[in-house]
Amino acid sequence: MRNPLFSFMVILALLSSCFNVGAQSPAIQDDVVARLQSAALSSDLAWDLLASLTSEVGPRMAGSEADARAVGWAVDKMHSLGFDRVWTEPVSFPRWLRNHESARVLSPYPQGLAVTALGGSPSTNGPLDGEVIRFDSVKELESAASDDVRGKIVFLSQRMRKTAEGKGYGETVVNRSRGPFIAAQKGALALLIRSVGTDSDRLPHTGMMSGSEPGDRVPSAALSNPDADNLLLMLGHSEPVRVLLDLDVGFDGEATSYNVVGEFDGSEDRGPRVLLGAHLDSWDLGTGAIDDGAGVALVLAAAKMVADLPERPRHGTHVVLYANEEQGVYGGKAYAKQHQDDLGSYLVGAESDLGADRINRFKARVSPAAEPVIDSLASHLGKLGIEYEAGELAGGGADVGQMRKLGMPVIDLNQDASRYFDLHHTANDTLDKVNVENFRQNLAAWVTMLYVTANSPVAFGPVEKSE
Amino acid sequence: MRNPLFSFMVILALLSSCFNVGAQSPAIQDDVVARLQSAALSSDLAWDLLASLTSEVGPRMAGSEADARAVGWAVDKMHSLGFDRVWTEPVSFPRWLRNHESARVLSPYPQGLAVTALGGSPSTNGPLDGEVIRFDSVKELESAASDDVRGKIVFLSQRMRKTAEGKGYGETVVNRSRGPFIAAQKGALALLIRSVGTDSDRLPHTGMMSGSEPGDRVPSAALSNPDADNLLLMLGHSEPVRVLLDLDVGFDGEATSYNVVGEFDGSEDRGPRVLLGAHLDSWDLGTGAIDDGAGVALVLAAAKMVADLPERPRHGTHVVLYANEEQGVYGGKAYAKQHQDDLGSYLVGAESDLGADRINRFKARVSPAAEPVIDSLASHLGKLGIEYEAGELAGGGADVGQMRKLGMPVIDLNQDASRYFDLHHTANDTLDKVNVENFRQNLAAWVTMLYVTANSPVAFGPVEKSE
Repeated sequence: MRNPLFSFMVILALLSSCFNVGAQSPAIQDDVVARLQSAALSSDLAWDLLASLTSEVGPRMAGSEADARAVGWAVDKMHSLGFDRVWTEPVSFPRWLRNHESARVLSPYPQGLAVTALGGSPSTNGPLDGEVIRFDSVKELESAASDDVRGKIVFLSQRMRKTAEGKGYGETVVNRSRGPFIAAQKGALALLIRSVGTDSDRLPHTGMMSGSEPGDRVPSAALSNPDADNLLLMLGHSEPVRVLLDLDVGFDGEATSYNVVGEFDGSEDRGPRVLLGAHLDSWDLGTGAIDDGAGVALVLAAAKMVADLPERPRHGTHVVLYANEEQGVYGGKAYAKQHQDDLGSYLVGAESDLGADRINRFKARVSPAAEPVIDSLASHLGKLGIEYEAGELAGGGADVGQMRKLGMPVIDLNQDASRYFDLHHTANDTLDKVNVENFRQNLAAWVTMLYVTANSPVAFGPVEKSE
Repeated sequence: MRNPLFSFMVILALLSSCFNVGAQSPAIQDDVVARLQSAALSSDLAWDLLASLTSEVGPRMAGSEADARAVGWAVDKMHSLGFDRVWTEPVSFPRWLRNHESARVLSPYPQGLAVTALGGSPSTNGPLDGEVIRFDSVKELESAASDDVRGKIVFLSQRMRKTAEGKGYGETVVNRSRGPFIAAQKGALALLIRSVGTDSDRLPHTGMMSGSEPGDRVPSAALSNPDADNLLLMLGHSEPVRVLLDLDVGFDGEATSYNVVGEFDGSEDRGPRVLLGAHLDSWDLGTGAIDDGAGVALVLAAAKMVADLPERPRHGTHVVLYANEEQGVYGGKAYAKQHQDDLGSYLVGAESDLGADRINRFKARVSPAAEPVIDSLASHLGKLGIEYEAGELAGGGADVGQMRKLGMPVIDLNQDASRYFDLHHTANDTLDKVNVENFRQNLAAWVTMLYVTANSPVAFGPVEKSE
């Protein structure tokens, strides 16, 4: 059912677009966009920001001492980039710690296994050992008899497939999110999953188990793909395979971190701003270059480049670097809660959190009145090899998507994700994985999107609330 | 100067080739080789042996409990493959242990670093910290003033370049082999080198420092390439960078392992045999799939396939799986010492120790009398895409090359090494890195070489002694 207020506002928006008050001529806009793209394609700004974050802060797991340094880094950078206003908003969450993790096969083929605890895992409270029982997936585990599973270490061996859109992630991440709970229901001692990742490196992929699943969870860890392969070979013989697992990890009280917010004004004093988001926290294993240092650097650099134009676009830019996305979208949820009555302050939102390879497609979720602006954006982004997926609705990403759920219009600029899940949540998420030319193309796309939307003569919303 | 005995034996060999006693007709040999190649190109034998070694034994560092299990595995496999004789020959060496290794930047940008101790490193005897001083290479370090280096942690940042022949290894391995000694001469606290490797994974490359360098050595470790990059970024600022290094490693008494030897007879009862070699030990970080499980599996499988022919070639096959190649070619040197007066027992030797990617070239070091046999081999190997490098002399590899130094003729079948130094001496040296089709091509090359040489109507040697 359509919301009557929604319909009314669409009509208002359509009227506003007819008047097209204060719009730049298309020719001038085309010229500015061309110059912005050209500047971005030879800019070192985003790269320098990313190099600074990954080397001077490095890994910055939510609630850690390094996370606090990352907040300081972000505030300082926003000031030094000349943001008009910079502030922080507190975000609280349970602190989860990783002190030590190791695993080895005890028998019949003794050798070490490369593992990493899943976020949210309880401790094994010292070394724990048990016989391994294998299932392909959490679905297969769910239909197993508890008598077969009780007292054993469950191993889920399902492999994530590689696609350009990262679709295999959704198919296998359920082993990580729900596995620890289903294994507990069946009386298992512990859970090992094959990493939710597409590489063949001895670098396991961490990531959070579900925060919303009811009931107990068992100590849980991911094996690297080569280790999962090796364990499968061992299980192919008749002898039982016993594994020792030692995870000194777990929750330890409450922590507070901060969403870091910065604004550049537009050429009009008041009015809604374009929200650009990325998350500041990272997992602890890598330096968080692709997840999500790249996003942080891109939104900061794009905001700066547009603000430095001789004539700023009419609307301002509102950058949010979210706290603790990795362990449950705490920053995005806190932000949406705090600003839920404030939707009118945002023209449109967008998030960067899919790495730094070439952006090859974009989607929108906007009111019909804004479609001409999206068409214009499509034409500009097409010059960067980016295709408009007209039939699909943007989601806004994990953090910005929390505002989309409330009715904020959003645009998604999506990278080629073929390589993203090779590196995601591993020690291999480091600066050297970012290709300079691809990263500049990303920046060109972001300045294009920011400039075109911030200069829009029409509103992009409202859009319907959606889950 | 030519050795008169050498010249005499060349003449003998030439005469023997004129008589061509007992040679198979070329047509029959061509047919057998074609059938062997075809069988190898669809064979799982080498793969199954490699899967067994890497999963059932796994890492097998010389002198470890796993090394002893590897020896047991090799003896059992030779028996079950039906070798006519199987025995072991003891090899002793200093035992080097790796108990713990870690490093982190203390200031100004605190974060962990992925390191692995170099083989032969002494312990830091608990955590050690110091300011980092960078040089590009050991050569640059050699010309530095001791006053600048004293009391600091030296970092050698030279990057290995990637080539199909692995030539970058020789250019940079000197940082690993000599660096620990030069750093000690200059009064350094410790040494960090950029890994001698061509990948971009957070998996540092271990490897031995020189055993023959005189003087003291400092505690020494390799950083992964991404960590070396990160440290370089940190050193690009003005503040001194302090690193904490904790290496609980070192020599601990004497160990004994074994060269494992197996023979298949030829169709002639007595006479020289073809020596096929690979090394059984591996570094401890990976499961030793490409270094050198692949070689072990190839020489075992090739020997078995040729022995299983309806009619065996005239000469027998002598397989040596060498002990402790990694820490100083102990097995190869012990073997050569023990069998130095026995050169007449070997027709020709060859070693596999450059991974498992496609073999794309081969070299020989044989007497002129054997050139027609090498030409015939070149023709057969050409069908597998392998080129004869007629102008270059084979070296025989690290272990078999010890016999070549004494005058044994050798043939080198060399793999494309582009990818080898991505994985070499790292945790990533695992079975999944071996491509099944490439590995079968390797096996086809080895059975071809073994059959053609074992059936040779002429001797391949003697060749001159060489260093």
